[in-house]
Amino acid sequence: MNYPNKSKGNYKKTTSYANRGMDLEALINESNKYYLETDEALIYKKPTEIGINKVVYKPKLVIKDAYFKSPSTLDYNGIYKGKYIEFDAKETSSKTSFPLSNIMSHQLKHIEKVIDHGGICFLIIKINEQLFLLPGNKVIEFINNYERKSIPYEYIKNNGYLLQYGYNPLIDYLKIVDILEEGGLNNGSGKEKEEK
Amino acid sequence: MNYPNKSKGNYKKTTSYANRGMDLEALINESNKYYLETDEALIYKKPTEIGINKVVYKPKLVIKDAYFKSPSTLDYNGIYKGKYIEFDAKETSSKTSFPLSNIMSHQLKHIEKVIDHGGICFLIIKINEQLFLLPGNKVIEFINNYERKSIPYEYIKNNGYLLQYGYNPLIDYLKIVDILEEGGLNNGSGKEKEEK
Repeated sequence: MNYPNKSKGNYKKTTSYANRGMDLEALINESNKYYLETDEALIYKKPTEIGINKVVYKPKLVIKDAYFKSPSTLDYNGIYKGKYIEFDAKETSSKTSFPLSNIMSHQLKHIEKVIDHGGICFLIIKINEQLFLLPGNKVIEFINNYERKSIPYEYIKNNGYLLQYGYNPLIDYLKIVDILEEGGLNNGSGKEKEEK
Repeated sequence: MNYPNKSKGNYKKTTSYANRGMDLEALINESNKYYLETDEALIYKKPTEIGINKVVYKPKLVIKDAYFKSPSTLDYNGIYKGKYIEFDAKETSSKTSFPLSNIMSHQLKHIEKVIDHGGICFLIIKINEQLFLLPGNKVIEFINNYERKSIPYEYIKNNGYLLQYGYNPLIDYLKIVDILEEGGLNNGSGKEKEEK
């Protein structure tokens, strides 16, 4: 995806109201660009892996037949305060729950592995026009404890962290990561530190 | 790239002699697969980013016109012993030096940033049928101190670490990362720890 190479000043022109209509991926990419410019973190979206059936070489290299592969890791990764960070952004039109079919089974295994290796791992979920950061261990906990095929909105609200739409960056999800790393808030996600 | 889904036992069938002829990327992918199976590290090759000009949706989604974009980060990244790791693998047919044209200028800036953020960063260079792990700070040091357009073989030999071809994994580059993290060997790369 290409986004215009904005100068920092341009961020101010956007309003939080307008941003609500913005594509979730674009919101996060813009936030990552801001983090990169301010040197707070190096976080990139991994390109979608493609399988190539046919390329032509003349007059220049062009892919003529290819398909998207399904990912086995999460879409975004990088480094923040010396730590490995990896997450994915998902949106659902359902107002009552987040369907787990949005996450591949090997992605779920990957979330567990990243946590086991000491990385920061979470999902950003857009539901009911709200954005939540749901820690990876809360995703795994849900799957291990419930037989349901979707995570209820209430569970996300109680175990996740509401992300506010802002200006610089558009979504300051690293602020929530700081809270998580400090041990979480006392809102049901407060056990992070004890669990480590 | 697709590689056959080998069981662990299959690694033993390959010989170190045969591996020398193996494509560098394949060698590293197989080594990463081994690290993943043994749960030593989670390291993946980032897919090459493509720009898409045309897709068709019927009978199924197929990319009909696309091109490869040049990368701004390095090809491999992940987590090892809780730390962020990022590196690239490059080969040259030159026997006397490694041309810096192999690395994009924004990739060089990225190496500096990863180091600044506390990540492990290096290049694996294949030259003269030998593999070297050259720490990122040694790449930056060379560029800052010399006006040359290529890194001489002698510099790589003196500041890098020779990687042996093995079995499980095919290239055990994490063993060298351990040495680097412990402060490096006294072979000219021994100053890592002081420089941090």
